[in-house]
Amino acid sequence: MVVDEVESLEDIRRLLVGAPGPDLDAGEQADRREAQLTKPPGSLGRLEDLARWLSLWQGRHPPTMDRPAARLFAGNHGVARQGVSAFPAAVTAQMVSNFLAGGAAINQLCRALSVSFSADAIELDRPTADFTEAAAMTEAEFLAAFNRGMVSVDRTMDVLALGEMGIGNTTAAAALACGLFGGAAADWTGPGTGLVGAELAHKTKVVERAVARHRDAAGDPLELMRRLGGRELAAIAGAVTAARLLRVPVVLDGFICTAAAAPLGLVDPGALDHCQAGHVSAEPGHRRLLSVLNKEPLLNLGLRLGEGSGAVLAIAVLRAAVACHTGMATFAEAGVATP
Amino acid sequence: MVVDEVESLEDIRRLLVGAPGPDLDAGEQADRREAQLTKPPGSLGRLEDLARWLSLWQGRHPPTMDRPAARLFAGNHGVARQGVSAFPAAVTAQMVSNFLAGGAAINQLCRALSVSFSADAIELDRPTADFTEAAAMTEAEFLAAFNRGMVSVDRTMDVLALGEMGIGNTTAAAALACGLFGGAAADWTGPGTGLVGAELAHKTKVVERAVARHRDAAGDPLELMRRLGGRELAAIAGAVTAARLLRVPVVLDGFICTAAAAPLGLVDPGALDHCQAGHVSAEPGHRRLLSVLNKEPLLNLGLRLGEGSGAVLAIAVLRAAVACHTGMATFAEAGVATP
Repeated sequence: MVVDEVESLEDIRRLLVGAPGPDLDAGEQADRREAQLTKPPGSLGRLEDLARWLSLWQGRHPPTMDRPAARLFAGNHGVARQGVSAFPAAVTAQMVSNFLAGGAAINQLCRALSVSFSADAIELDRPTADFTEAAAMTEAEFLAAFNRGMVSVDRTMDVLALGEMGIGNTTAAAALACGLFGGAAADWTGPGTGLVGAELAHKTKVVERAVARHRDAAGDPLELMRRLGGRELAAIAGAVTAARLLRVPVVLDGFICTAAAAPLGLVDPGALDHCQAGHVSAEPGHRRLLSVLNKEPLLNLGLRLGEGSGAVLAIAVLRAAVACHTGMATFAEAGVATP
Repeated sequence: MVVDEVESLEDIRRLLVGAPGPDLDAGEQADRREAQLTKPPGSLGRLEDLARWLSLWQGRHPPTMDRPAARLFAGNHGVARQGVSAFPAAVTAQMVSNFLAGGAAINQLCRALSVSFSADAIELDRPTADFTEAAAMTEAEFLAAFNRGMVSVDRTMDVLALGEMGIGNTTAAAALACGLFGGAAADWTGPGTGLVGAELAHKTKVVERAVARHRDAAGDPLELMRRLGGRELAAIAGAVTAARLLRVPVVLDGFICTAAAAPLGLVDPGALDHCQAGHVSAEPGHRRLLSVLNKEPLLNLGLRLGEGSGAVLAIAVLRAAVACHTGMATFAEAGVATP
């Protein structure tokens, strides 16, 4: 079963505001079991929090982690023609071929961690408009990409790791984050695939111009995403929304993925409560964005690749949390004295 | 094949000073391959460093991560009679039964992450002497425990995660770290299984008295470990030493495990170069100790359980590093343009 598609920005708002909350009964069951397990209370730290969080947002106890899934969305960006990446725009499609052939980092991570994977390349031959001059997407284009993300999610997933690929998309993420949360363009703009010096300064100027161009949409997060985002960002936002409706917890990846989810949290303050930050990226805007969203990343390994790499790696932590929570003996079962 | 046992502290010093260094050829091969993989240079962050580090210390390229192993050592502590733990000393043996029955956290983690596991309970019915009054171990007892650790390592292990169990052993670790590196007892003493307030203040006093009692051994790290350590700490030091000789990289766990390895690094400054810190524990002395040893932890998840839990969890990161390094396509293979 998948969710119904949306037909307007207003549909999205309605879904977010009406979305189901945490399953408090399942959370209480998790707390009760956790207290009986053979360890000092609290000694598994975030693993204990995660077992509870999965119970709350899967809506069941015990939580399960047998079928984790990763979904990657790719898109091309009109703004790439402004020279905002170390790589040519053709690399988006080349990397999609690499994903399909199983040769990219995300393929190895999914294989090593037993995570199912698929990649969806969205209209790569039709880049978004250059958002320094116009809105990146028409409303129809935005909704089509959002719906691609929505229908990628189904109830069989124990958790969903989201990732992206798109030459130029750290520029889109920086512009979107700056439009949503304010501050200077330089606060949100980073090296991406490897820009430094004058190239990075140029990229920062591009972000500044884009945000200024669309200032009239400030205060309307979904409209800002339509204008400053990209198809893969819209699809990620759609997947996050559908996952909430289907009780599938989400692990976000790096800067772009988190920027794509951020507008949802501005539409409804609890809209990202079913999402964990898988890691904090080396892209400097990501730490700032996580701080604004009040998300504590699970990992900090200096990754800045995207593709969902940090999110998939964090699934190992979620799996460990569920293994301990469900498999450990209680004090009574093991005959261990309590404190 | 395993290493020969040691017969004196001087034997240990000789082994450490004469131990093999990194395999620089293997490291260069790792660097050459890494530069050709389909990702921006450096974008896999610490995963790239780890692939190189494993090559250096396994002494081969490509590195392998098919047979990771975890070894846990347990011991009992005379100082436990001073009331330094929230749990009674009988819990050490009860938890060993739990390890053997497969009901502890470490069992679930090893199963979830496909890590082989064994636990070695060292003379639980003969606790060490109370080190506020005497040396914890005679030289013969210390060497016997050190050798138990040494013979637990063999060349089939791709990596070795080390862990421990022993009621009272955060007190031993705090005393040993304070004796080795100075500072106040309060800098190194933490809640352990859950002490707060007056109980924690009492534990701190016990550490202070122990360090003062053995001040004459300051400057002799192995002698300090004999006097202030415990059998499981000595075994961990033995395992770290044997692993170096057998080219098995090591992942250290939390405060106690790291304190057990620390004396080796004072005997020879490179003696812990084949060790990663799997995580930083919530036990406050651990962060300080890692800082002194110049080790950057791989994970920070608020764990404070011991057993090797953080070290085994970090094996997921090592496995991911090897999977990416060995499995990814090169730019040429995938037909992806380079920057």
